Amino acid sequence: MSEFSIPIRVYIEDTDAGGIVYYVNYLKFMERARTELMRSLGYGKTALFEAPEGEEPAMFVVHSSNVHYLGSAELDDELQATAQPLKVGRANIVFEQLVKKGDAVLCRGEVKIACVNRSTRQPQAMPAAMYEKVKSLMI
Amino acid sequence: MSEFSIPIRVYIEDTDAGGIVYYVNYLKFMERARTELMRSLGYGKTALFEAPEGEEPAMFVVHSSNVHYLGSAELDDELQATAQPLKVGRANIVFEQLVKKGDAVLCRGEVKIACVNRSTRQPQAMPAAMYEKVKSLMI
Amino acid sequence: MSEFSIPIRVYIEDTDAGGIVYYVNYLKFMERARTELMRSLGYGKTALFEAPEGEEPAMFVVHSSNVHYLGSAELDDELQATAQPLKVGRANIVFEQLVKKGDAVLCRGEVKIACVNRSTRQPQAMPAAMYEKVKSLMI
Amino acid sequence: MSEFSIPIRVYIEDTDAGGIVYYVNYLKFMERARTELMRSLGYGKTALFEAPEGEEPAMFVVHSSNVHYLGSAELDDELQATAQPLKVGRANIVFEQLVKKGDAVLCRGEVKIACVNRSTRQPQAMPAAMYEKVKSLMI
Repeated sequence: MSEFSIPIRVYIEDTDAGGIVYYVNYLKFMERARTELMRSLGYGKTALFEAPEGEEPAMFVVHSSNVHYLGSAELDDELQATAQPLKVGRANIVFEQLVKKGDAVLCRGEVKIACVNRSTRQPQAMPAAMYEKVKSLMI
Repeated sequence: MSEFSIPIRVYIEDTDAGGIVYYVNYLKFMERARTELMRSLGYGKTALFEAPEGEEPAMFVVHSSNVHYLGSAELDDELQATAQPLKVGRANIVFEQLVKKGDAVLCRGEVKIACVNRSTRQPQAMPAAMYEKVKSLMI
Repeated sequence: MSEFSIPIRVYIEDTDAGGIVYYVNYLKFMERARTELMRSLGYGKTALFEAPEGEEPAMFVVHSSNVHYLGSAELDDELQATAQPLKVGRANIVFEQLVKKGDAVLCRGEVKIACVNRSTRQPQAMPAAMYEKVKSLMI
Repeated sequence: MSEFSIPIRVYIEDTDAGGIVYYVNYLKFMERARTELMRSLGYGKTALFEAPEGEEPAMFVVHSSNVHYLGSAELDDELQATAQPLKVGRANIVFEQLVKKGDAVLCRGEVKIACVNRSTRQPQAMPAAMYEKVKSLMI
């Protein structure tokens, strides 16, 4: 299976006075890729923020991020942002995420997402179907 | 009376690949000034988002903005952002807002804020005490 | 002729604590549409930032923006951002810009872009071919 | 010695539809603290981007960030962002960075900054005086 990937066009809003993409914005690109990966599995906002009857409402929060910057991108560049589950637990997912320009990896991240109870913010197992779907994406 | 003003330091996050402050970010600086002006009158988030008993919960939204760009700012610059009520109605306020570097006006805006019912989003008079306080700031 | 339009997906990065798209971000959506319109005419970053031999290097800057907020958008919404030249001068363009959700206009703006000399920042005529192409888009 | 710290006020621009500070923005808060720490040592933009005669122009870039999210902040909160050198090399600095609300740590990061040649982007020793000053801050 190949990595899930979305195209990212670099706009002026993404850049900084160094003439390149502001490094913080790679985290936004990575989140867009995770969001679209989950959407491709059938989990848009509604699925994530609304619980089926009888279930506790859960939500995903970012637990931690570990990002290495390897290159830089400029205005107008066409990039690819990827999202690939590395580890899948009942209440969290670690994604490997790349931002690439062609074959060059500009930024590599591991982002751990935790499923928490919407009220208490305590860890809570994600829906079983979601767990299975995400797990099936592991290489 | 002199205009209400707050200092703004330009960080790399505020700039773009042109080497200057990204023009959209002046709107953020203007909002910070409005927020601090309202806070100086006793209206922080709580006042704006929670209604006293017996009153309808209101909120402020931006109705329109009219902004002219006259100059540019760079990384590390120390700017001033001002907020001055120009017109005060029962359910809206028009602020004149400047972003200045020393005496030079970099950006001039008129921003109209509307008070609306939190549920219906229909115009609603702001609390009488707030109206009086904001009106008293007019020059 | 129909308006030039690009799709915009609303991500969490675009929203604010009001649960809706942060109003300042509509300016970013509008700029993406202008950028893509110019790109569709053959004017990407290179065309804008590099001058042919014998020509003065020019750049476009935002002269002013006049924006009305009419509705709100939420996480996951699919919007359309449009860019349509309203007035075209030798050294400036006024764009009408809409951000729409289906048929509903959420935000309407007039954004005036000025062509300036890259060194002096004084107004400078845009390349003749660009002027003609943009003018041809007027309805 | 106590940690270097700057106050951060949370504005609506910093929040997201979850009603809390958008997690990516903590990276911006951390950078503001690093910037102010360097400024307190006498290194503003000029020092960082312009080289003394006879020296190669250097610049700092973010090499990597490792961030853990422990709590959340809301609109209007007053936070503290800290920057403390953990390791200081000739061509890089690892900062420990906290974002705190009172005594509660909301976000803890390790951010590695690399000094590189402005033209080649290859590692380059930072000026000796800067190295000594930053090293002197280690606890």
